[in-house]
Formats: sequence, structure tokens, C-alpha cells
Amino acid sequence: MRITSETFSDGIRERLFTIGDIPGVLWTPAEGSGPRPLVLIGHGGGSHKKGWEVVSRAFPYVTSCGFAVAAIDAPGTGDRPEHPEVRRLVASIQEREAAGEPFWLSPEWPALNETVAAQLIPDWQTALDALRKLDSVGDSRPVGYYGLSQGGEMGVRLVAAEPRIGAAVLGLIGSEWLIDAAARITVPVEFLLQWDDEGNPRDSVMKLFDALGSAEKTLHANPGGHFRVPSFEIDSSIRFFARHLGGS
Amino acid sequence: MRITSETFSDGIRERLFTIGDIPGVLWTPAEGSGPRPLVLIGHGGGSHKKGWEVVSRAFPYVTSCGFAVAAIDAPGTGDRPEHPEVRRLVASIQEREAAGEPFWLSPEWPALNETVAAQLIPDWQTALDALRKLDSVGDSRPVGYYGLSQGGEMGVRLVAAEPRIGAAVLGLIGSEWLIDAAARITVPVEFLLQWDDEGNPRDSVMKLFDALGSAEKTLHANPGGHFRVPSFEIDSSIRFFARHLGGS
Repeated sequence: MRITSETFSDGIRERLFTIGDIPGVLWTPAEGSGPRPLVLIGHGGGSHKKGWEVVSRAFPYVTSCGFAVAAIDAPGTGDRPEHPEVRRLVASIQEREAAGEPFWLSPEWPALNETVAAQLIPDWQTALDALRKLDSVGDSRPVGYYGLSQGGEMGVRLVAAEPRIGAAVLGLIGSEWLIDAAARITVPVEFLLQWDDEGNPRDSVMKLFDALGSAEKTLHANPGGHFRVPSFEIDSSIRFFARHLGGS
Repeated sequence: MRITSETFSDGIRERLFTIGDIPGVLWTPAEGSGPRPLVLIGHGGGSHKKGWEVVSRAFPYVTSCGFAVAAIDAPGTGDRPEHPEVRRLVASIQEREAAGEPFWLSPEWPALNETVAAQLIPDWQTALDALRKLDSVGDSRPVGYYGLSQGGEMGVRLVAAEPRIGAAVLGLIGSEWLIDAAARITVPVEFLLQWDDEGNPRDSVMKLFDALGSAEKTLHANPGGHFRVPSFEIDSSIRFFARHLGGS
């Protein structure tokens, strides 16, 4: 792991890093040291490791709970190089969207998710190895994962595959090809559904929630479209992680 | 209003009261005086104003938020006299349950709810009038309502009818005859669903949630049967009321 920049602001220490060709960011409290719970945040499609939906969660997790929070760029986003296959698939999906077609029924949609996952899941595991070697994270405390939409799509796969993750907030996704992975998840999950989500039909999201193998799982459904998750759900996720990961 | 007993325990002042023939209980912080938000708690079927599902919510609402909390007995329960019609309907419903019949499809089920509501809704309004005249409640602060199961069945009717109620936690109910009342509710609602609720099919509960006219409404669904609402939902309701009713 190579730290490429370090800044302090609002009580938070932000470190940009690379691990091989994986660009990432780590936020920890500006003060204090020693091991602490780590939350990985998976960004949404078309966003990147410092997108607003990542930062708006990361900052309160650090300041309210004293957690370490990390995010990495998905293939073709942020500080990663262009990814021709991702670019081609996204363009096709955007054409379908523009034409009013339900893109999630197109062959490009599962292909895009497969392409991203093939690189991103191993990259998350590599990043987790490296992060847990840092003094300010350590390998003795639990790890959480937060991701909605594409971050949820990747999260179901990652949490199912990664025994070091002990609790997850997931949602805004209902891909039927995730059913088997969801059934392998046994850790506590808070699962979000937007009642009027244009791209994720209500029934498909509930079916994925239903498939989760976790003894503790909660579905939080709110009115509105895909991008209208109410801010009190950020607050709810803070308490969820505080309950399952403990404080610093 | 006549106060029939007053006790202090664990930082809580408990007053039993009657208003005409309505028996009730009011909990407020042992220390302090002056107006404060009031939460009305509707008990479940077969329970009463001091049932565990009431007390387990009332106590943290008083101690964590400084709220006043009140509950009254439904017809035929607690300190109320026997109610022959309620008794007859409950007995018929219990026979159907024992025979493995879906009691909520029987004619006795809507009849029971109508019978209870015809008395309980006006009684809640009478109690609200009287409670808001007390120095330790007042009429200047908002009012919330909490009720699941029969407390939800009654709550949908009460909240729809009562403009003084500004926020409600409801759920574990999916009666189709409540759809119109639900549509008249416009205040923030947290709505609970038990994923494996024997007596309230999932789809019927979601349909009632969908019908709520509130701009802010959240569905919290958890695995398990009717009586298995996880304790973290009590914590969630505390924060919901703290957000909408404010502190003392």
C-alpha cells in the first residue's frame, strides 16, 4: 500500500492510497490511534470512491462512531484507467434507458455487473488485507460493508464471499442472479428498498431480501425513487453498525 | 380526570387514572415539570394498558426522551368491566384459530374491530382532551401514537381522525377495511411488518403501508412471527418520536 496524499479536515484524517493498481481512500479520526472497526463503502454505478453517497456516510461513521472507513474505485471509475468493456456496456445500457427500455432486462446489465465484479471483488479482498495491516485499523476488530445500487450488487457478492465482514447495509438492488449469493449471507443485514425505484421493481428487491440467509435482517422501505433514500437512513445505518461493530 | 394511584420507580412517576369509565395510566419523568410531548400507546388484542408491550415502550420513552406516555384499557380489558359482545366475538375467533382456520377471513374479525373501535376511538379523544389539561403534559407540544396489531388497527383509525397526533408508529396489521383511513393519514409513520406473521399476510400489510397518505413513511420488515418484533425496533421508535416530537 502506497499513501499518495494525507489531509486533515473537520476532525477527519483522509488518506488516498494505491495498492498495486487499486486506487482507494481511507478515513479515520484525526485524533487517536490503535485498532478500530472498519466499514467498507461500495460506491454506486457511475460514481467513484469519493462520490457524495460515499462521503455522506463515511464522515458520520468516523465522527460519530470512531470507525475507519475505506472506499475503492470500481473498474473504469475515479482514478482508474478507462475500461473499454465497461464503457461499451454502460453506453449500451444508457441507450436503452434513453429509449425508455427497462435496462435491467437487457443482456448488457448482467454482463456489466459480471465484468465489474470479476475485478472488484478480488480488489476489495486485496484492499481488506492491506487495510487490516495498518495500525489505525488492525485485524482484531470487526468489519462492515455498506453499499446500495451497484454498491449493493457488489456487496451481496462480497459479503457472501468474505468471512471477515460481520455486518452489512445493502439494498436498492433485486437482481435474480444474486439469489444464491444472498442465501449464503448469514451476518446481520439492513436492506434498503425505495418503494418507487424505477430500475429495481419492488417485488425483485423483496425477493432478494427474502433470500438472505441471515437470522437478523431488516428491510427498510421508503417512498420515492432510486435516488431518494431519506437522510434518516444514514442515521439508522450508523446505529446498525454501532450495534454490530461496536465503538472504537 | 380522577387520579386513583401515584407511584414512583426507576425515575418514572406512574399515575393510574379514570376519566368517567375510562381507566388509564400516565407515565412521566419523576423529576421536572411543565409541558412535554405525549405519546399514546395502544395495547394489543387480549392485553391491557399495562401489558408488557406497552410498558417496554413507555419506560424508555419517558427515561430517554422525557416524554409523557399514556395508555388506556380497550373495552373488556384491564380494569374495564366485562364486555359481552367483545367476549363472544373473541371466543368465536379463538375457536376458529384452534381449528386452524384463518380467523382474519371470518366475519367475527371485522365485527370485533368495529365493536372495539366504536368505543375506543372516542375514549382516546376524551383521554387526550383531559391529559392535555395536565401541567405535566400541556396542550402546546406534539402528540404521537404507538400501536401494533390491535393497537395498529385502532391506531390507523385514531390517527386518521385526530389532527392533534403528529407522528405514529403503526403496524402488524393489514385489514383491507383500513385502506381509506390509511389514505387520510398525512403525518410521518413508521410501519412495522413481521415477515412471517401468521395472522397478517405480508401482501396485506404492504398494501396498507402503500395506502398511507403520508409523505414520510417507512416500512420496517423483520423476519419472524407476529410476536417476534426485534427489540431494536423499540430503539428505532424512540428515535422516530424524538425526531418528530422533539425532546421535553
